[in-house]
Amino acid sequence: MKTYFDCISCFVQQTISTLRRISDDEALQEEALRKVLLLLSEINLNLPPPVMAQPIYRTIREVTGNADPFSQEKTNQNIYAHSLVSEIKERYHSDPDLFIKMLRLSIAGNIIDSGVNSAVKSEDVLKSIHCSMETPINMKAVNALRNAITEANTILYLGDNAGEIVFDKLLIEQMPHDKVTYVVRGAPIINDVTIKDAQEVKMDELVDVIDNGSDAPGTILDDCSQGFRERFESADLIIAKGQGNYETLSEANKNIFFLLQAKCPVIARDIGCEVGSFIVERKI
Amino acid sequence: MKTYFDCISCFVQQTISTLRRISDDEALQEEALRKVLLLLSEINLNLPPPVMAQPIYRTIREVTGNADPFSQEKTNQNIYAHSLVSEIKERYHSDPDLFIKMLRLSIAGNIIDSGVNSAVKSEDVLKSIHCSMETPINMKAVNALRNAITEANTILYLGDNAGEIVFDKLLIEQMPHDKVTYVVRGAPIINDVTIKDAQEVKMDELVDVIDNGSDAPGTILDDCSQGFRERFESADLIIAKGQGNYETLSEANKNIFFLLQAKCPVIARDIGCEVGSFIVERKI
Repeated sequence: MKTYFDCISCFVQQTISTLRRISDDEALQEEALRKVLLLLSEINLNLPPPVMAQPIYRTIREVTGNADPFSQEKTNQNIYAHSLVSEIKERYHSDPDLFIKMLRLSIAGNIIDSGVNSAVKSEDVLKSIHCSMETPINMKAVNALRNAITEANTILYLGDNAGEIVFDKLLIEQMPHDKVTYVVRGAPIINDVTIKDAQEVKMDELVDVIDNGSDAPGTILDDCSQGFRERFESADLIIAKGQGNYETLSEANKNIFFLLQAKCPVIARDIGCEVGSFIVERKI
Repeated sequence: MKTYFDCISCFVQQTISTLRRISDDEALQEEALRKVLLLLSEINLNLPPPVMAQPIYRTIREVTGNADPFSQEKTNQNIYAHSLVSEIKERYHSDPDLFIKMLRLSIAGNIIDSGVNSAVKSEDVLKSIHCSMETPINMKAVNALRNAITEANTILYLGDNAGEIVFDKLLIEQMPHDKVTYVVRGAPIINDVTIKDAQEVKMDELVDVIDNGSDAPGTILDDCSQGFRERFESADLIIAKGQGNYETLSEANKNIFFLLQAKCPVIARDIGCEVGSFIVERKI
């Protein structure tokens, strides 16, 4: 997906809110913001938004010296999402189709995106979960995904955000999870999942977890490690969570299913749906 | 008033929406947006927002070749506001204190600001008018303004936006208007009033109208004509409408009353009020 003008305005807002999260030092904030504006003046709009987000957040980290501004936020998101699990398991334990329920919840969990919404609240998460069973969903694509999971020998599940990873785990539990490898980002970027998050929610006790070697908030294959690219190429099936993975892989030539909430007007326009839609989409 | 980080984000949004208003040519839009981002990377945050808005809108005009992107919008706003006058006059014609009613309406009319809200709707205007008689207002400042008007021999009324000027006229009718000169911008900028708007609403048949010689969306004295500056210096009383005039004159050493709606969080924070507040404030 290309980058739209509105992404530029969103990047400026993300920069300001991230800088405020890190420091009250206005001179430091100003230095970082000026550098980001200069970067944006030279943006390549033909590339996906995460390609620009990567140097923006690198600039913020370099100028402020804060390597992981969302560190505490991610832990809080993991703890909060985990606190909802027992109630979810109780509610659905005898459900005849746990796969679809957990699929819906994992898309509901995609609301926990500190890029699109710098201050995701527990009310936002609860509302998303509450609506998740009634939100329209592409059942043809869901059934195709079921079949693809059955047929595949190797499945790469590309994670997106902290907190959300807890719901991903509930979904993966409904798959033949010995085939599944869960992929996290190579280094902290916004509230995207890293190895630390996978360990915090014990994803690593359920499936193999690898990182993609990149600090972009998406999957920019050219920027990923050789090891990850080989796994990506050889996998029978890719399940890609969230906007960043959609934006960077929507034109990839692989057997990919995207699971996400279309949380901003730009991606909704690109997909051709309403903001807030639950997306299950196959791109082959 | 200084420029805040949030103003930068707002400038980017204003640039994008103004470019979309002017042209569908994405290459042209991109060229202008890149130039604006470069300007913003070098912004002087110690100066008021209109000082930055001026080169931003100049850049948009230069790159697109459109000297007045809001021309039709301004005429529509004048026509729409005028269409409300007969009902207003009918409703209030026997009111014992027309001055305060028209003062409130002139602040209500300040909602017609295509900078803060690129697509002001008639519903926004009607809502603002509807609430205007109940919105809290600083009566001490209103009474000080009444006295200042009585005492002054020369009054400069600094206009702000098209449409709003119709309500300014209703207010000026309640003053000894032979003392009043109405001031418009020196050239088109956003939907700010120019000589053309003053003529469209026949302000020039009620009072003298002069322009300030500047194309900034405010009153940057150093950028105004010598003639205007002399009038400004010698006036006994300045009535300054709107955010742009507040932002540029809030620290001026003159007998000024500001009349405005605090329409964005930045100015509300600077003034110390809620967004949407009606402001009547004296700065001496």
